[in-house]
Amino acid sequence: MKPGSSAIQMTNAGLEAARPVTAYDEHGQPVVRNIAAERPLTLYLDRQEIVTLMTLGTQPELLILGYLRNQGLVENLADIIAVQVDWEVEAAAVTTRNGNVENMLEKLSHRIVTTGCGQGTIFGQLQANLNRIRLAPQPLRQSTIYELLANLRHYNEIYKQAGAVHGCALCLDSDILFFCEDVGRHNAVDTIAGHMWLHDMEGRDKIFYTTGRLTSEMVIKAAQMEIPVLLSRSGITQMGLDMARKTGMILISRAKGKHFLIYNGHDKMIYDARPRH
Amino acid sequence: MKPGSSAIQMTNAGLEAARPVTAYDEHGQPVVRNIAAERPLTLYLDRQEIVTLMTLGTQPELLILGYLRNQGLVENLADIIAVQVDWEVEAAAVTTRNGNVENMLEKLSHRIVTTGCGQGTIFGQLQANLNRIRLAPQPLRQSTIYELLANLRHYNEIYKQAGAVHGCALCLDSDILFFCEDVGRHNAVDTIAGHMWLHDMEGRDKIFYTTGRLTSEMVIKAAQMEIPVLLSRSGITQMGLDMARKTGMILISRAKGKHFLIYNGHDKMIYDARPRH
Repeated sequence: MKPGSSAIQMTNAGLEAARPVTAYDEHGQPVVRNIAAERPLTLYLDRQEIVTLMTLGTQPELLILGYLRNQGLVENLADIIAVQVDWEVEAAAVTTRNGNVENMLEKLSHRIVTTGCGQGTIFGQLQANLNRIRLAPQPLRQSTIYELLANLRHYNEIYKQAGAVHGCALCLDSDILFFCEDVGRHNAVDTIAGHMWLHDMEGRDKIFYTTGRLTSEMVIKAAQMEIPVLLSRSGITQMGLDMARKTGMILISRAKGKHFLIYNGHDKMIYDARPRH
Repeated sequence: MKPGSSAIQMTNAGLEAARPVTAYDEHGQPVVRNIAAERPLTLYLDRQEIVTLMTLGTQPELLILGYLRNQGLVENLADIIAVQVDWEVEAAAVTTRNGNVENMLEKLSHRIVTTGCGQGTIFGQLQANLNRIRLAPQPLRQSTIYELLANLRHYNEIYKQAGAVHGCALCLDSDILFFCEDVGRHNAVDTIAGHMWLHDMEGRDKIFYTTGRLTSEMVIKAAQMEIPVLLSRSGITQMGLDMARKTGMILISRAKGKHFLIYNGHDKMIYDARPRH
């Protein structure tokens, strides 16, 4: 076991992601469709209520770990004694070694006022952190992108069944090391961050894939994990692009089939698999 | 002018939604593509910093109004003296008649700990409100849905140009009264709420269309606006469905072309335009 991770008492409270319900189609006929779960999970950090996340609920412990890390609420994994999820009360209780509620409240009150995202997470502090991050991506082969996209076809299970979720993958070259889906794309990223933290994985040699859009917060979070390549099936925003330029991240959008668009890092690309015109 | 709205001093600080940048395609060739803007806008309510929203920035004043309303931070429009957006400092300054910072801070501290969404907005209080809401949708014609979808084809401008945004429309039967797009689907909904608030429009006879998924928060916000029909191009979640059932909302997903799925309110549907098999 990795240092730290062995010591954490964790539940394993993942729930089913989808379930069938009856809808009516354009012929007025009943049809059975799977729909994605969405569950509130309220985080209590040393008994202090922090936030309610709306989640698919398949990997709540990793989500909570990643949330704590990405929000800067806990700095060292070794400080965490337990992560205990109890769906009966829709709560995740996190116990730390030096539970200091007052200190936490101070952190939190600072956090509120800088809160951003779709409408959500910390912003000001993240942007400050970003100015310190310089990524150094290795050259990236076009063939690697295609292999990775081909490998991803076996994932996105819940999306295929039920839609209404975003998927994220942590990849080493074209190998998918970890994949997760959630109703919120920020949750999916946080779950990956939780997995990396728990298993002491570094981001420098990884590729991050998401089905979601490349907005500022996606780029910030990937950069915080020191992942130098961010690949998406969807589009990008100006601010996502600005932040990729600032950190030196390779930013690729609209990656699907043989198509993609390199928005940043063209000079790092090796076009070794150009499709025929 | 409507009471209240005439009195508010508002800037008109909407910015361009998209701009062209150069990307490189799978042939290694430069291509020019429009991408969506994304801008931080920090809300100051009577000089108290509240939140930073990441927004497309086309209708910032309406977004701020709708945010204040949907978060319950200001109860009456008549209490608002001014909404002034200044992109130079990326700030929206709202001045109220009885600016009471201490009272605000108390509201806010309550808010933080109940914060939810993708990872974002108030949750506990919204859910409490929801228990009081009972919608009474009128019968809905299938032909109205089709006319509405046909009319929507002329909108979604930024999406067509640049992708990476969600669109929302406020409709009366198949007429589109107001349409907006934003990088965050919650922002798009809040902008519609701001428009309705400013123009003293009621929701009871309206239909709400969104390109985004029907998660709990979308249903809660539509219900708060008393809109009894929610229509989406995308999928739904279990919790979105539960809340639609609870409030009596007609909930329709996957509405595109001739296809749709009625997840709640089948008994209110008039199937007057069944497509041929």
